Amino acid sequence: MITRKEALKLDRADPFARKRKLFSIPRGMIYLDGNSLGVMPKAAPARVKHAVEVEWGRDLITSWNKHGWFHLPRKIGDKIARVIGAEEGSVAVADTISVNLFKVLSAAVQKRHERKIILSDSGNFPSDLYVAQGLSQFMADGHTLKVVEPEQVLDAITEEVGVVMVTEVDYRSARRHDMKAITARAHEKGALVIWDLAHSAGAVPGRLMEVDADFAIGCTYKYLNGGPGAPAFAFIHPRLQNEVMPALVGWWGHAKPFAFAQSFEPAPGVTRLQCGTQPMLNMVALDAAMDAYRGVDMVKLHAKAARQCQMFAELAEERCGKFGISVHGGRDWAARGSHVCLAHEEAYAVMQALISRKVIGDFRAPNLMRFGFTPLYVGYADVYDAVEHLYVVLSKRLWDKPKFKAKAAVT
Amino acid sequence: MITRKEALKLDRADPFARKRKLFSIPRGMIYLDGNSLGVMPKAAPARVKHAVEVEWGRDLITSWNKHGWFHLPRKIGDKIARVIGAEEGSVAVADTISVNLFKVLSAAVQKRHERKIILSDSGNFPSDLYVAQGLSQFMADGHTLKVVEPEQVLDAITEEVGVVMVTEVDYRSARRHDMKAITARAHEKGALVIWDLAHSAGAVPGRLMEVDADFAIGCTYKYLNGGPGAPAFAFIHPRLQNEVMPALVGWWGHAKPFAFAQSFEPAPGVTRLQCGTQPMLNMVALDAAMDAYRGVDMVKLHAKAARQCQMFAELAEERCGKFGISVHGGRDWAARGSHVCLAHEEAYAVMQALISRKVIGDFRAPNLMRFGFTPLYVGYADVYDAVEHLYVVLSKRLWDKPKFKAKAAVT
Repeated sequence: MITRKEALKLDRADPFARKRKLFSIPRGMIYLDGNSLGVMPKAAPARVKHAVEVEWGRDLITSWNKHGWFHLPRKIGDKIARVIGAEEGSVAVADTISVNLFKVLSAAVQKRHERKIILSDSGNFPSDLYVAQGLSQFMADGHTLKVVEPEQVLDAITEEVGVVMVTEVDYRSARRHDMKAITARAHEKGALVIWDLAHSAGAVPGRLMEVDADFAIGCTYKYLNGGPGAPAFAFIHPRLQNEVMPALVGWWGHAKPFAFAQSFEPAPGVTRLQCGTQPMLNMVALDAAMDAYRGVDMVKLHAKAARQCQMFAELAEERCGKFGISVHGGRDWAARGSHVCLAHEEAYAVMQALISRKVIGDFRAPNLMRFGFTPLYVGYADVYDAVEHLYVVLSKRLWDKPKFKAKAAVT
Repeated sequence: MITRKEALKLDRADPFARKRKLFSIPRGMIYLDGNSLGVMPKAAPARVKHAVEVEWGRDLITSWNKHGWFHLPRKIGDKIARVIGAEEGSVAVADTISVNLFKVLSAAVQKRHERKIILSDSGNFPSDLYVAQGLSQFMADGHTLKVVEPEQVLDAITEEVGVVMVTEVDYRSARRHDMKAITARAHEKGALVIWDLAHSAGAVPGRLMEVDADFAIGCTYKYLNGGPGAPAFAFIHPRLQNEVMPALVGWWGHAKPFAFAQSFEPAPGVTRLQCGTQPMLNMVALDAAMDAYRGVDMVKLHAKAARQCQMFAELAEERCGKFGISVHGGRDWAARGSHVCLAHEEAYAVMQALISRKVIGDFRAPNLMRFGFTPLYVGYADVYDAVEHLYVVLSKRLWDKPKFKAKAAVT
């Protein structure tokens, strides 16, 4: 078993250690929830303050030109493109991930309108399933969402399937789909594929062009540290960009938005996924956050995360297995996402006790504690110390208090 | 003709003068573009700073509970409800106005699925028309958008019309539809009505319940001063809230969002219009901005705006008519919105010259200068002075310079 001294040694040798300095990590906190809401980049407060006081407060409406508000989503899209393995000009930044899924799903369904099955799996984030259910029910023409187990996706891609809609990294088990194999099979059978990169973007190497993905969506407030409710992104493969049309369109996606024509004419490329006016205070925070990914080798970054996940899981089992802790999900560390779920029958209370000790993860019903390892700012000693806190909480039964058992409104 | 002295006298007697102190108006600027982007409330910078540095930076993920992020959209919805004449609990705050229009339009179309016509008018904001076009084309079952002249809307409501989708205040002429008459006729013919309040909310008295409106949408960055790209709102009449389902749904609209069930079950009431995670930095700015409307009598507020519009239009024609200025739109000041468009063949250059003199309005192709009178912070002397600047620009032909004629990327 690794010692704390060895963990510190790994930190000293960590090529990403200098990146940690770009983030504001509260003193004494071990933050392992960057897969839910990333920590604040140090560049964010000044950038937002400028947007509020100078851009909004002083320059007002002229900021759409003067401070580049109108084109900021595309500029950020290019920064994200580099992280997710997409080409420049193929990523739009707008709205929420569910809204973007609706846009690309409606576009894909329309492109394959003769096929009625949207295929997904039970490991997908529920909101993605809701989007497909809402769209299918609205269409009322026989379109249905078919949900299989994650291991069955490949075999379930038949010639009846129009769209395969899957999330690369499972939000609980961190199981990663084989993007290349699923995309290839879908194309072989004539289906289109939408990849949800919510738990991938900024955590695992981006390979959209390499795997020949048709569409992708993702959020930016997790590993990309864009801030609470930061705008989401959407990708369309260049070969499809001018061939597809979302059901949801608006003036920001018009070829000439300021001509105020009465008929919609889609902008060329991915810009047609833009719809309405975007939240600029959140947008500038995201812009600042994306700079932290400059020069980052995503393969090396994920290798660090995989090592941290393995270290955490093995230490947790070794130290805390006797208190009922077990690792949820697979152990092929290189082929997983960047988080680890631990199962425990009192998971909610244990997590609350950990939070009271400034070890922050989150709870996923019914019995999972989820810990994310954002390799840009989490150190190996953090991983070691988190397990020690868990050991203390469990060995001393610190979780067994009413204040930790009472569930909050939002969990 | 009114004198500057008389204008100053009106300002001294203005019951809303104290509200002006709540806003940060750049020194020397006459800001007449609050109908496009409202000025910054003085409360906004501190509120946003807190959200960035304390809520995001320090409390991180716990802020969803600790700082009430999750329920903030509903809390703001109740503040907006008071301004637009809706009941508490019937307004959701989320996404953009186009996305919200898509939600309520899809819900309305589905509710009247046997009728294939969506009726709108040529004075509607183009993006609303695009949303209806996008939805109709996607449905591919005979649904069509029928666009008539604004004066023809009432007569065009037949029993073939499923949904009437109209904007109360025209974004150019400020012409106001008779909400009561149109809604009554629609109900008489069995159609549902969606009111777009983009240029109404915060400017004209809100009457949604009074006129028995079915749905409404609106944006908050204009007269409500919520900040650049502030989240939009959507209203469903209480009698319909549990009877309709948008095509676009997501986990924030689920009855139990944190149960992570695989099937969508709509939350009761208007919450089903919530979809995904909202941009919290913009959301808190909007929350702060809405407090400026506390205690405001909307009837009196609009009476002030109407007086300012009349004063501006009449002064402009009197002083500048000889230079080719004319008032665009009707003159029934009490029955209009809160802005005035002036036509001039060199409108773009004239507006740029005005902006260089810190008189801020905007340009709408091909030949309109638009000036908004946000009665919470615009004074009568501002109105007077704006016309004097216009006179100087026109009488000295200050607009006739290359720098004012060169169009910017975003106009």
